[in-house]
Amino acid sequence: MSGRIARRLIELGLTLPKAQPPVATYVPFTHAGNLVVLSGQLPMENGKLAVAGKLGDTVTIEDGQFAARLCLLNLLAHLQTACDGDLDRVRRILRLGGFIACTPGFADHPKVMNGASDLAVDIFGDAGRHARSTVGVPSLPLDAAVEVEALVELN
Amino acid sequence: MSGRIARRLIELGLTLPKAQPPVATYVPFTHAGNLVVLSGQLPMENGKLAVAGKLGDTVTIEDGQFAARLCLLNLLAHLQTACDGDLDRVRRILRLGGFIACTPGFADHPKVMNGASDLAVDIFGDAGRHARSTVGVPSLPLDAAVEVEALVELN
Amino acid sequence: MSGRIARRLIELGLTLPKAQPPVATYVPFTHAGNLVVLSGQLPMENGKLAVAGKLGDTVTIEDGQFAARLCLLNLLAHLQTACDGDLDRVRRILRLGGFIACTPGFADHPKVMNGASDLAVDIFGDAGRHARSTVGVPSLPLDAAVEVEALVELN
Repeated sequence: MSGRIARRLIELGLTLPKAQPPVATYVPFTHAGNLVVLSGQLPMENGKLAVAGKLGDTVTIEDGQFAARLCLLNLLAHLQTACDGDLDRVRRILRLGGFIACTPGFADHPKVMNGASDLAVDIFGDAGRHARSTVGVPSLPLDAAVEVEALVELN
Repeated sequence: MSGRIARRLIELGLTLPKAQPPVATYVPFTHAGNLVVLSGQLPMENGKLAVAGKLGDTVTIEDGQFAARLCLLNLLAHLQTACDGDLDRVRRILRLGGFIACTPGFADHPKVMNGASDLAVDIFGDAGRHARSTVGVPSLPLDAAVEVEALVELN
Repeated sequence: MSGRIARRLIELGLTLPKAQPPVATYVPFTHAGNLVVLSGQLPMENGKLAVAGKLGDTVTIEDGQFAARLCLLNLLAHLQTACDGDLDRVRRILRLGGFIACTPGFADHPKVMNGASDLAVDIFGDAGRHARSTVGVPSLPLDAAVEVEALVELN
């Protein structure tokens, strides 16, 4: 890795996680032309779920933001594979979809999801400015606190 | 605005809201070729959330339909920007995704989402006939009752 | 039907259901270039909802898998129409989105969604290997246990 984004990751002190295999019978990404469709990622760290539980209950906003950030890093690990190792090929992160496991009374989903969105812009600059939908869910696979999916355009 | 869709909006007595800035670090839409990916919109009216709460609880079906309709108008406000002001460039609304904040016992999501779908067809005719997914969620940003996202193809 | 996929459906002993009309004002699929966007499908069988209720409550994992499988068959019924009857035109199932109606304590969403994913691979082979997002929801239209949507690339 010697490209612009690779150097930016180093500047930010970030190491992409090892790309995690899917937890079931599907693939981490598919291609259609220059679009990459990325599977929803959970907040995995060193191969283990790092943030379990629900916002509005045992998970704080800060923990939720950390979880969203981990989801983004896991997405980027797969995106790097989709780019044959060269993240400079990312023309635009078109969309992030954020699912926040939470109680019915929770209303701060945007703050949580900013953990992923802010990092995308920190890393990719304008190419990281994405459309976004963020919603609450009663529960996620493995009791994860956050799941994030992505649609990306490559050069 | 002097196009066919602009005239249709006037016939229907509709004024698009002022495009609302995102509530966090993302953008209202992205482009990839002739596709426009629009961020999930809440039922905002005059810059304020118009319908809060949950279906099956304090929000009636009629209020939910009104909320879905407002979400669509907010999507169109951003879509108009994405079209450089000319909504006649809309070839097809490819997909609407509807998220309905509701209780576990609620089952009338399609009726609620029709508030958005019916209006899309009223405004755009066949170009407004979209694929759709509608699901319940325990809560949405700002305690909104409905959130709608869209994927649109331009000429 | 005399193509490769048609023969594979016969080998697997599968008959695609009659394509169900949407339960509201939208269409089963839209096209943009060689992309097909398919509306979320419920577990319908012979025109009736086959699996109602929630995972973690009255619906078992096995029933949920059966429901996910039915959703996929209903998606394929519409996809067949989108392909003018020839499912051999499917280049890739790009994405499946799975919504599992469940209790807040449920965490086995991936197992349930495998009912759809495994069948996609059984039928289409490598062309059926898709990106996937699976999340819990408090409720679905008609009290369905599962809803699945799809994005497909054609040749």
